[in-house]
Amino acid sequence: MQRTVTCGGLRKVDDGKTVILNGWIHRIREHGGISFINLRDRYGITQVVIDNDSPSECVETAKSLRMEYCIAVKGKVRTRPDSMINKDMATGEIEVVVQKIDVLNKSEVLPFMIDEVNKDGTPVVPNEDLRLKYRYLDLRTAKMQQYIALRAKVTLAVRNYLSSNNFYEIETPTFIKSTPEGARDYLIPSRLYPGKFYALPQSPQLYKQILMVAGFDRYFQIARCYRDEDARGDRQPEFTQIDIEMSFVTRDDVLEMTEGLMGEIFKKTMNITLPTNFPRIAYDDSIEWYGTDKPELRFDMKMQNGNFMADIGTFQAFKDAVAAGGTVKALVVPDVAEKYSRKLIEELENTAKIYKCRGLAWMKVGTENILEGGISKFFENKGEEICTKLGAKTGDLLLFVADAKSKIACASLGAVRTKLGKDLKLCNPDEFAFAWIVDFPMFEWNEEENKWDTAHHMFTMPQAQYHATLESDPASVKGDLYDLVLNGYELASGSIRIHDPELQKRIFKIVGFNEADGQKKFGFLTEAFKYGAPPHGGIAPGLDRLLMIMCKETSIHEVIAFPKNSFAVSPMDECPAEVDQKQLDDLHISINIPSEKSQS
Amino acid sequence: MQRTVTCGGLRKVDDGKTVILNGWIHRIREHGGISFINLRDRYGITQVVIDNDSPSECVETAKSLRMEYCIAVKGKVRTRPDSMINKDMATGEIEVVVQKIDVLNKSEVLPFMIDEVNKDGTPVVPNEDLRLKYRYLDLRTAKMQQYIALRAKVTLAVRNYLSSNNFYEIETPTFIKSTPEGARDYLIPSRLYPGKFYALPQSPQLYKQILMVAGFDRYFQIARCYRDEDARGDRQPEFTQIDIEMSFVTRDDVLEMTEGLMGEIFKKTMNITLPTNFPRIAYDDSIEWYGTDKPELRFDMKMQNGNFMADIGTFQAFKDAVAAGGTVKALVVPDVAEKYSRKLIEELENTAKIYKCRGLAWMKVGTENILEGGISKFFENKGEEICTKLGAKTGDLLLFVADAKSKIACASLGAVRTKLGKDLKLCNPDEFAFAWIVDFPMFEWNEEENKWDTAHHMFTMPQAQYHATLESDPASVKGDLYDLVLNGYELASGSIRIHDPELQKRIFKIVGFNEADGQKKFGFLTEAFKYGAPPHGGIAPGLDRLLMIMCKETSIHEVIAFPKNSFAVSPMDECPAEVDQKQLDDLHISINIPSEKSQS
Repeated sequence: MQRTVTCGGLRKVDDGKTVILNGWIHRIREHGGISFINLRDRYGITQVVIDNDSPSECVETAKSLRMEYCIAVKGKVRTRPDSMINKDMATGEIEVVVQKIDVLNKSEVLPFMIDEVNKDGTPVVPNEDLRLKYRYLDLRTAKMQQYIALRAKVTLAVRNYLSSNNFYEIETPTFIKSTPEGARDYLIPSRLYPGKFYALPQSPQLYKQILMVAGFDRYFQIARCYRDEDARGDRQPEFTQIDIEMSFVTRDDVLEMTEGLMGEIFKKTMNITLPTNFPRIAYDDSIEWYGTDKPELRFDMKMQNGNFMADIGTFQAFKDAVAAGGTVKALVVPDVAEKYSRKLIEELENTAKIYKCRGLAWMKVGTENILEGGISKFFENKGEEICTKLGAKTGDLLLFVADAKSKIACASLGAVRTKLGKDLKLCNPDEFAFAWIVDFPMFEWNEEENKWDTAHHMFTMPQAQYHATLESDPASVKGDLYDLVLNGYELASGSIRIHDPELQKRIFKIVGFNEADGQKKFGFLTEAFKYGAPPHGGIAPGLDRLLMIMCKETSIHEVIAFPKNSFAVSPMDECPAEVDQKQLDDLHISINIPSEKSQS
Repeated sequence: MQRTVTCGGLRKVDDGKTVILNGWIHRIREHGGISFINLRDRYGITQVVIDNDSPSECVETAKSLRMEYCIAVKGKVRTRPDSMINKDMATGEIEVVVQKIDVLNKSEVLPFMIDEVNKDGTPVVPNEDLRLKYRYLDLRTAKMQQYIALRAKVTLAVRNYLSSNNFYEIETPTFIKSTPEGARDYLIPSRLYPGKFYALPQSPQLYKQILMVAGFDRYFQIARCYRDEDARGDRQPEFTQIDIEMSFVTRDDVLEMTEGLMGEIFKKTMNITLPTNFPRIAYDDSIEWYGTDKPELRFDMKMQNGNFMADIGTFQAFKDAVAAGGTVKALVVPDVAEKYSRKLIEELENTAKIYKCRGLAWMKVGTENILEGGISKFFENKGEEICTKLGAKTGDLLLFVADAKSKIACASLGAVRTKLGKDLKLCNPDEFAFAWIVDFPMFEWNEEENKWDTAHHMFTMPQAQYHATLESDPASVKGDLYDLVLNGYELASGSIRIHDPELQKRIFKIVGFNEADGQKKFGFLTEAFKYGAPPHGGIAPGLDRLLMIMCKETSIHEVIAFPKNSFAVSPMDECPAEVDQKQLDDLHISINIPSEKSQS
């Protein structure tokens, strides 16, 4: 009773054929003594009918069938009468009249029904831990089948595109030396070398650079990465990135290659044509316009410079901010003056304050551009001038944040902009708005440790025009860094790397990373750079996040076959778990439970 | 000075063009005031010339150049005079006359030269730890470049073939629950859950079966696997397998799919046409004929049953073996009677004895089939009969092992057969001889624990005709198991799995695996099987081994970009290594050095 056709394969032309189907009972119902089974496999659903034309033992068997039984049926394809045609199903013009049924495997009563919908047509979504405990059932849903299929198509498209562009996929080791930097490493105790450990890679960064030193020219890998971070939100202990590195390239080579890659992915898997080039936005502009380096670009509504407001009005907070070298940021929200009550504006202010500003100032533009409400009393008769300068009009809501620190003003009002985008549904859910953020600062001032840190990682190339002033003016240095953003998410991060050992030493020195540390942690990379390392650079789009956005989901859990939950636990196999004492003995380790630790 | 063409790209038609090349100085020599540089990148080698036509500053720069400097050169393509054409190089008809040289990066003196050859043309091979410490230099050799390129082509061919055959590549988790079975698991201490551990998977076995329960129908993954085995020979802590699973299939479906896959790999990457079907050899036959389930089939020379020799002669050892229910195995080695001295035969006997037989008996076939030497005195006048029965002729060497245990006789003489294949160079090095070994025994008697074990793993389906007699006659049960062998190596192992929970319980019971153990270790899989698991089966070819055989190497180290050495150590980054105390504290573990452990 092995299948001769899948549950998605039969059409009207197959009328009269005898076929065998294998699959799961998606739905079963009886109607006037006739049993209708929707038989499902990965390829589709076929209606199977047990009626007067079926042998009597089939009618008996049918009575014992339940949802999700795995069965084999043999039967004859029959065109449905016109009134019974289901245009929503690919196989909706036919049905299969059963001649024989074999139960391949029974199913117990399900913890949740596959593809159950509420009366209003929305899907019933069980709680996440239940879904993850019975992931093998959850993965049977049409949604998860589609997502996992899309993921397979995306990775194949990536591989074929990059391979046809002369990239080699090369597997880098996952047992490496611990070089904790930023996030924590996961460690693996060595049984053969007591007291020693392997670490799992946070990314193949060092190895992909080594591959450039080795002359492989163009490398990629769809690589598993590991970071031991505190469980929160959407993080996973293991995640996947499309890791890419190229030799003898400039920034623009990497950007264009990535644009081609994204274009191919969207074309091949969703038949969406992306623009050939993505907008390039300088980091400073992105902060000025959107208050973030991950701007949502499916709507425009840029922030504007409102410093002129300090001069033309009497609002002291604006004057103070500008006098202190800070800024007034302004945001014109078109056509919502009436809609936004004090209460709604207060909600916006709460969002703004998360980013440390003191408050959100507002005015509404009334008829004839007369300003109303909020701080309008400080700007009497200035309506026309302000509207002209900000491009505002009657009916618009004007929002302002002023702060002595420009960054705080930008971030705070930028967060308001993002919230407005969601609240006002300004984003087309079917749009994918890519952009590059470029010209990032190379260094960041570390207030706690009173020193400079690298903003990205230590192997990032400072832009050539700053090489002379690295030490004298680190604040001004821009790195050859680039982020790819998509619909408000950072999708990829990359840089041109330093290939000159002397320049690398200068960077280490600026961030106070002494040579012994460098030698210990990255010794083999700095050593490798002594043997003719080529100029090189790369990028690493996050596969999970890309899929999440493509699927219009908000959690990467939805696009990973077997994710951990938000607490880094797998409810299906209940890991992490205790192990046998013998295993610990073999590894020469013992456990210190926290209470003991606090006493030591 | 970014390249306009690679070092492999120029041909005669490019004569006169001005180009820029980027690459490494493979060789440099001066000859009559002219410098010749072989400039190398991944794509090839181009001869670059600094002569009277070059600017004088280039002549100066050329003097400072050393091997493996990474440089950019601008120059004009010139057709070489006929006498200087190098037919071994794709670019051998041209050279580039330098107009400008930029040193992109210098190189220190190399620990070993790239692609150095001895005077006799054989390659100079540095010792392995030196190669691995400077792997970025070792990977620059033509051999390693070719192997890593081939590996990338093979994985791409696998992915495209399987995807076009309706398989999805699905990533299974590498943080799973420890279920030590056979080999040891590598463990990862959980920071968030003191005293708990994740384990790295020895294979995605449980998860690929779960994916079948989830209805994905056809799954594959080029998957990293981890086994904490004692370091010996060719083993790596991490290795890669082409993991495959299919639903609603029989054994033959899996075999045919795999044959198609191998055919595609060899055709696409080496332009070798494999036979459409591979020979299928029953396990029992493989033992009888070759003494092993991993036969080298590039030469035939099967072992034969020599039990008749017990009757026709007076050699007591043969008579005893047969009387005890054992066997006499015979091997005819054509045309080497003269070549094989007593000393050489003794070497063969030493090989045989490794497999526990007591000795290797021999005779030579002289003119007119008269037997000579060895045990010939026990078979006077029987030359004609023996030669007829064994298909031997004048000039052949006859070898025999007799033992009361047939397995010992087979294994011992089989090892002699394998050794002869190598010694006599019976294998065509360009041949790839695949075969299936099928009908493996389901159970193995565990002498130490005095119980039955499963020969493969516990999820293997016993062949249907034995289901009634599993408990009453486990010794006779054949499993739906299959191995793919290639040139004497086991390349892949697979089976049809049990999908029936009741049958699974019977197997657990036969091998003394109690239900509580089963629940603890495989609870989620047996749980999953309660919900309509489909019939399914799969296979998992080892990628490293496949590449090793394709590259005609004898160690998988040669086909892995960054292998550990034979002691599970990476000489490049010196892992495993000690970690900071803070890291251990974070993980709630402490180290017991072995001396302490022995006191506890």
